[in-house]
Amino acid sequence: MCAQYNYNDESCIAAFATVMGNSALTLIRCSGKDSITLISSIFEPEKIKDAPGNTVIHGWIVGDELKSNTAAEKKRVKIDEVLVSVFRSPKSYTGEESLDICCHGGAAAGKAVMAALNAAGFRGALPGEFTFRAFMNGKIDLTRSESVMELVSAKTDASRRRAVMRLCGSLEKEINEIKESLVRVLASAEIYLDYSEDEISADQDEAAGKLPDKDTALAALARLKKLNASWQIERIYQEGVLAVIAGRPNAGKSSLFNMLLKEDRSIVTDVPGTTRDWIEANVSVKGIPVRLVDTAGLRETFDPVEKIGVERSCKLLEETDIILYLIDGERGLTDEDSKFITNRERCLLVWNKADIAPVPRLYPLADILPVSAKTGAGLDELYEAFVRAVLPRNGGKLDRQFFDEPSSASLGTVRQKNLVENACAFLEEALDMADKNEPLDLIAPLLREAVNSLGEITGEVSTADILEEMFSRFCVGK
Amino acid sequence: MCAQYNYNDESCIAAFATVMGNSALTLIRCSGKDSITLISSIFEPEKIKDAPGNTVIHGWIVGDELKSNTAAEKKRVKIDEVLVSVFRSPKSYTGEESLDICCHGGAAAGKAVMAALNAAGFRGALPGEFTFRAFMNGKIDLTRSESVMELVSAKTDASRRRAVMRLCGSLEKEINEIKESLVRVLASAEIYLDYSEDEISADQDEAAGKLPDKDTALAALARLKKLNASWQIERIYQEGVLAVIAGRPNAGKSSLFNMLLKEDRSIVTDVPGTTRDWIEANVSVKGIPVRLVDTAGLRETFDPVEKIGVERSCKLLEETDIILYLIDGERGLTDEDSKFITNRERCLLVWNKADIAPVPRLYPLADILPVSAKTGAGLDELYEAFVRAVLPRNGGKLDRQFFDEPSSASLGTVRQKNLVENACAFLEEALDMADKNEPLDLIAPLLREAVNSLGEITGEVSTADILEEMFSRFCVGK
Repeated sequence: MCAQYNYNDESCIAAFATVMGNSALTLIRCSGKDSITLISSIFEPEKIKDAPGNTVIHGWIVGDELKSNTAAEKKRVKIDEVLVSVFRSPKSYTGEESLDICCHGGAAAGKAVMAALNAAGFRGALPGEFTFRAFMNGKIDLTRSESVMELVSAKTDASRRRAVMRLCGSLEKEINEIKESLVRVLASAEIYLDYSEDEISADQDEAAGKLPDKDTALAALARLKKLNASWQIERIYQEGVLAVIAGRPNAGKSSLFNMLLKEDRSIVTDVPGTTRDWIEANVSVKGIPVRLVDTAGLRETFDPVEKIGVERSCKLLEETDIILYLIDGERGLTDEDSKFITNRERCLLVWNKADIAPVPRLYPLADILPVSAKTGAGLDELYEAFVRAVLPRNGGKLDRQFFDEPSSASLGTVRQKNLVENACAFLEEALDMADKNEPLDLIAPLLREAVNSLGEITGEVSTADILEEMFSRFCVGK
Repeated sequence: MCAQYNYNDESCIAAFATVMGNSALTLIRCSGKDSITLISSIFEPEKIKDAPGNTVIHGWIVGDELKSNTAAEKKRVKIDEVLVSVFRSPKSYTGEESLDICCHGGAAAGKAVMAALNAAGFRGALPGEFTFRAFMNGKIDLTRSESVMELVSAKTDASRRRAVMRLCGSLEKEINEIKESLVRVLASAEIYLDYSEDEISADQDEAAGKLPDKDTALAALARLKKLNASWQIERIYQEGVLAVIAGRPNAGKSSLFNMLLKEDRSIVTDVPGTTRDWIEANVSVKGIPVRLVDTAGLRETFDPVEKIGVERSCKLLEETDIILYLIDGERGLTDEDSKFITNRERCLLVWNKADIAPVPRLYPLADILPVSAKTGAGLDELYEAFVRAVLPRNGGKLDRQFFDEPSSASLGTVRQKNLVENACAFLEEALDMADKNEPLDLIAPLLREAVNSLGEITGEVSTADILEEMFSRFCVGK
């Protein structure tokens, strides 16, 4: 499909915008310059041609079918009863003439309507092609385009809220403000460059070697660095973390696992079709998506015969972002426990069964978390410790305000992060050269590069290749 | 949920009308008298309150959130950017004020919007509640209500076409015509009953004992019987059939299986999460939904050790609607083959590898189908034989026209079929009594019962219990 069409042709496109399944309705999205003319050839009543924008027309998708297997004669048949929302350019998602077709659910109705659309001249949309067109038509910048995909793939409500902030334009605004401030610095610098040497007075001559408005450049750099740091946290809300529950047999691993599920049953997703010998589930810990693994099935780790089990278990412990290591409070710390936790990083020590066996006073292990998987005591503290452990800390201190809900703009994709880093690097080099009193005509190009990197983030500066690569990672129908 | 609410309250209701998943959009449907007022409390811009019917408003679902975990103060936050289609009574699916909310796809956005709707006063809809309201408000009769569910669960395009015919009102029209003709018969009969004995002339007296307009009643009965017979075929298009491929090892079972899949790859559905030791897939054979099972994994049937395999295999062969029994053309009919096929019903004999080993002339087995799973030869004939074998025949002859595409009305549910049978029984009894010259005042009540049964089919005659039972089998959001 990607080989056959490209993002820059002007075809009318159509795609399923919802998952086909056992549902009441299926939504098909269409866009393109002649969409309304095309649909009117397969829609009854025909008045859809004259429908104003933002109106909904009730009617039937119709098509021509052979009258019988033998005769060549065709007849007009009704395919599905639908609601069609008509959008006129430029008041649509893509900025083009567009249609949202709401047909009956299940597989058969949607397929039949799509077949009729294809016959009428709509081609299947490429991944992200609707949003690509929205961007090309100036409806949406790249940061907001990307936030649409972030929103669709948000794993928790906290992830969704962060994506919505960018969809509202928080990042676009921040980037544009920083960029404009740098453009001002660049403009002041270029004024000096534009003067011929003769025209520069003694005062100006002295100033000429220095970067004018350096404070503005420093402020821009500080804002960029704050943005750059935000990605460490955003990434975790998007991708989530892997957490493994480990511990000796009977330490209560499965009880803790089930309790963590129970606390947040609404967003538990069982991992389907798993054939692994451990149990896992997706949960939300204070809004952080967590793939939680109970290694109960891997207790044979210590049995040399179970080599495959050992290998898998080791791999999991290597990959994991955090281990919840359970100590059986009734038995206390065993040699086996000590052996496991000594020198191990990213490990939360959890003292289970604290309801019947509290942690002894003056216990030699620091930072041990007493819980009772049975009563639920200590769970809140465990969550807090979990969040502190998995979120990155800037200078050792975690900005609570920031991870609860970012009060300022933050980055949403690796692409954005790389471009912010580029901008930082150019700006730092420019400032460094200014400190060394290097001539402005060497500094100005660096500032321009920094401005360009920021322009690439919003898409003000872009190339076809980059755009295609970016949008092709979207889902079809978006 | 069913215990908490009932179909007859007047709440505003909301439900997911599409499957939540990794898709661009999710559609939420709302209906109820105050829907537009309710949504305006969680929608920006507020002008949605004044939106005319059948218009689409772009905006944001908003909600109140605690400013932080500690403060009690709330702030207004944007939840998701949406398109809302506004429908004003009576121009909507349900006949009430309604909204279709098109929000972003994925799990998080839809859940957050639904939570906001619930907070605003929309309750979760019961299964089929939208269609129930459409029926109660006279927008749609029961046959068309039922066809909506048939359409959503249609497994093949042929099944969809049949449901669409009923959605267009073909069955409603037929039932109403038959009913009206019976009402005419009933009216003529009642005229005689209304006259007191004194008023009846000698002529009338003679006629009084006879059913007037008996031909009309006979014609109605014939139409009802035709409808009743249609269910046998409709049922197969809706529910599909089970077909098992059997045969000795190396007869080519898997090749035939794969070829049947390949012929119609577009509607193959792998059965997910199957842990059975056979392979199965859903295919369409000339529009008939077929659950096709390859017993390749059950070849140990003949091995006494594999008892479980034998039992499963036997159960499958008992349940199946048809067996495609493959004979290895290269080896010819073996004793094992003969043993299997002797006295076995519902069995198509397929001679495989006909490309290299044709069926010998004057072969003793009748009706053997030569195919080549390798070249595809003979497949069309196999399909034809398959359809002939699984579709019921009226009087030994299969009405091709009828099964290709019903030219006349046909039944879509067991409920309809039972009521048509009731109507037939009452009508036959009435005609029988008329033949025996029984008095009209005994015949008329039977005619009235027949008319009532037909009225129940379209819902003209209905009780709350029956309706609730019927709509609760719908899916939520429909």
